Amino acid sequence: MTANLPRRRLLGLAGAGAALAGAGAAVGAFASNRPDPEIENLSAAKVPFHGAIQAGITTLAQDHMHFVALDVKTTKREELVALLKEWTKAAERMTSGLEAAENGAVGGHIQAPPKDTGEALDLAASALTLTIGFGPSLFDQRFGIADQKPEALIDLPLFPLDDLDPLRSNGDLCIQACANDPQVAVHAIRNLVRIGFGKVAVRWSQLGFGRTSSTTRAQTTPRNLFGFKDGTRNPKAEDTDLLRDHVWVPKGEGPEWLAGGTYLVTRRIRMHIEIWDRTSLFEQEQIVGRTKGEGAALGQTKEFDEPDLNVKGAEAIPVIGEVAHIRLASPESLGGARILRRGYNFTDGSDGLGHLDAGLFFIGFNRDSRKAYVPMQQALSSKDEMMEYVEHTGSAHFAIPPGVREGGYWGDTLFK
Amino acid sequence: MTANLPRRRLLGLAGAGAALAGAGAAVGAFASNRPDPEIENLSAAKVPFHGAIQAGITTLAQDHMHFVALDVKTTKREELVALLKEWTKAAERMTSGLEAAENGAVGGHIQAPPKDTGEALDLAASALTLTIGFGPSLFDQRFGIADQKPEALIDLPLFPLDDLDPLRSNGDLCIQACANDPQVAVHAIRNLVRIGFGKVAVRWSQLGFGRTSSTTRAQTTPRNLFGFKDGTRNPKAEDTDLLRDHVWVPKGEGPEWLAGGTYLVTRRIRMHIEIWDRTSLFEQEQIVGRTKGEGAALGQTKEFDEPDLNVKGAEAIPVIGEVAHIRLASPESLGGARILRRGYNFTDGSDGLGHLDAGLFFIGFNRDSRKAYVPMQQALSSKDEMMEYVEHTGSAHFAIPPGVREGGYWGDTLFK
Repeated sequence: MTANLPRRRLLGLAGAGAALAGAGAAVGAFASNRPDPEIENLSAAKVPFHGAIQAGITTLAQDHMHFVALDVKTTKREELVALLKEWTKAAERMTSGLEAAENGAVGGHIQAPPKDTGEALDLAASALTLTIGFGPSLFDQRFGIADQKPEALIDLPLFPLDDLDPLRSNGDLCIQACANDPQVAVHAIRNLVRIGFGKVAVRWSQLGFGRTSSTTRAQTTPRNLFGFKDGTRNPKAEDTDLLRDHVWVPKGEGPEWLAGGTYLVTRRIRMHIEIWDRTSLFEQEQIVGRTKGEGAALGQTKEFDEPDLNVKGAEAIPVIGEVAHIRLASPESLGGARILRRGYNFTDGSDGLGHLDAGLFFIGFNRDSRKAYVPMQQALSSKDEMMEYVEHTGSAHFAIPPGVREGGYWGDTLFK
Repeated sequence: MTANLPRRRLLGLAGAGAALAGAGAAVGAFASNRPDPEIENLSAAKVPFHGAIQAGITTLAQDHMHFVALDVKTTKREELVALLKEWTKAAERMTSGLEAAENGAVGGHIQAPPKDTGEALDLAASALTLTIGFGPSLFDQRFGIADQKPEALIDLPLFPLDDLDPLRSNGDLCIQACANDPQVAVHAIRNLVRIGFGKVAVRWSQLGFGRTSSTTRAQTTPRNLFGFKDGTRNPKAEDTDLLRDHVWVPKGEGPEWLAGGTYLVTRRIRMHIEIWDRTSLFEQEQIVGRTKGEGAALGQTKEFDEPDLNVKGAEAIPVIGEVAHIRLASPESLGGARILRRGYNFTDGSDGLGHLDAGLFFIGFNRDSRKAYVPMQQALSSKDEMMEYVEHTGSAHFAIPPGVREGGYWGDTLFK
């Protein structure tokens, strides 16, 4: 059956062994180092739902994503908590490749609405992960958790050149579904929304068709719609020290319920690909600061050669320009700040003006967005020449609670 | 590497041998019966671009689709013909897994815009097919082909309950890209649009994330977002007599340039899945006329049992209701008319009203839409109870020319 294997996956994995080590190391930041044998079966795999951290952050990046932001419509804390419990049960099942409820699609009472919508009946778990987050607006007066709001969970500032659509921004809650079969991700979100009927409403959602980052060294670096490899310097699951310092919120920093969690920033970045496609290769490489083919930093030869921001060319001009994207976004330029990126390419039809509506749905996890994402985006949005070719049309910020222990539920450290 | 194989594909193929036979039989309708060994490597395969019929119709349905409708902006026939020739070259290359032009992404002059956008550089052909079609509006006075317009290439009538968005309907040209890697499909459309800059503009485009039909007996029947198996009675590539009678335009029927071609109808069908999800299993099965789990016609036990529209239940009421979807759409109810369906599930974010904007992008091929699609849709839109749960938001009709011979170009029988 190897003949049926998509080449992306053939090329995308340096070896299951390395992946295993990576997954184990990732979880190991807060839990055990024991690799889960299930993860060996990468594409169709079941990724464990329970753990010290939520799956879908350092998990081997899946090929597809469906992301939803929800507004809570009930004003009753107990209804919200009941929903979080019900969601957790469904999420445990669906990430195991099961229906949202036992005999959900066809086994219930024939006069009752099915408890599973059925479109994933014949599909495997496909490495589905479901990751929940809580937005700043959840911590208003409705649910008695205003005093639990993390200081770092700010409303993101408006950055220069932002062109945000309020219908594609913010939200009380978010759920990120990632899977190697898009129908599995869409099914999961759709069923969680169905379960929440009357209590939550979809604020916005986004489908991503191809990963734009690798989260372990076992994966090759994918390309974004500018045609460049994206995320070469992304911290990997294997970099447990980097993740500890830059992704996970340690005990004592912020409210207790968030210890072991993180913060998620999403940005819907429309790429004006038609304009980009009419710029020269030279210009493109100058803007990015890397070669397009190999993905090597300018002045280096291989993709994973460390960029040297000090290399000078003719007339002592830096080879990696002063406003090259990789310089502005580098830890060296941001006081060491790093973000774990886990974004996806998207194409949402066309814009009515003769162009495709395509781009990158940025997903970044960091320990404190005020110290990592915000300064990075301030630098990019004010100096990066790439801004001529992109437009930020959506934005959101969520606190990502730690993982759910057996018997627990999404958000139990917050609502306990 | 079998471990990495998505289950959808494991379940989706009864065997490469059967698929091979199917592919051969399909092409055999107008060309040779010799199966192409390339098709054996199904997911990453190269599907031959040249042939008596265009690929992407009876080709083993790929998992992903990107469809674009274009308006022609040039009014010069020779510019349009030059573009069709240039497109053909790029399509030949991309369906072979190559860049849109030789050394396109990084090998050209560094001061020139690249001739390939690069995001598919590391990806295989992924069974990419590119299929072109010509809309009714192409046959106006601009290009000297008004007398070549097929009588059957009508502007589709407005059907009861249609709620069509003009920005998602019609078009001078269409290109359907199908592939087992969505990035490969998106890359192909994007590069064809790039090549056409100034001569064509995107009118609308649609991304489909999961096939909703099987085109050969080697594939299992997939499920649509109502959770039901879709296309069980779809004519398959193996049914060469059915295809001859119902899909391909024979010599002498319509203009000569279209002999061996077909007609394509697209309908963007928004599904109100939230409302559907609150109906009972009984109601859902009555509306469809099949069981949800197995997909058997009511009154039968297995998916592929022939439906018996005459079976009566208690009080002599037909088991398959008078307005059940499968009755209304059956050849038995439509004077024998059949359509080769090749649609895709879609999810385009949300509707701003708390719901997902999801549904089915219907693609149907038939020999004469006036005799197949139109009467079928008249029956469905006026009687089918499923209409309470769907909304047709986009519509288009195209004539699909026959395949391109070696050395020819897209549309050469029309523009010769």
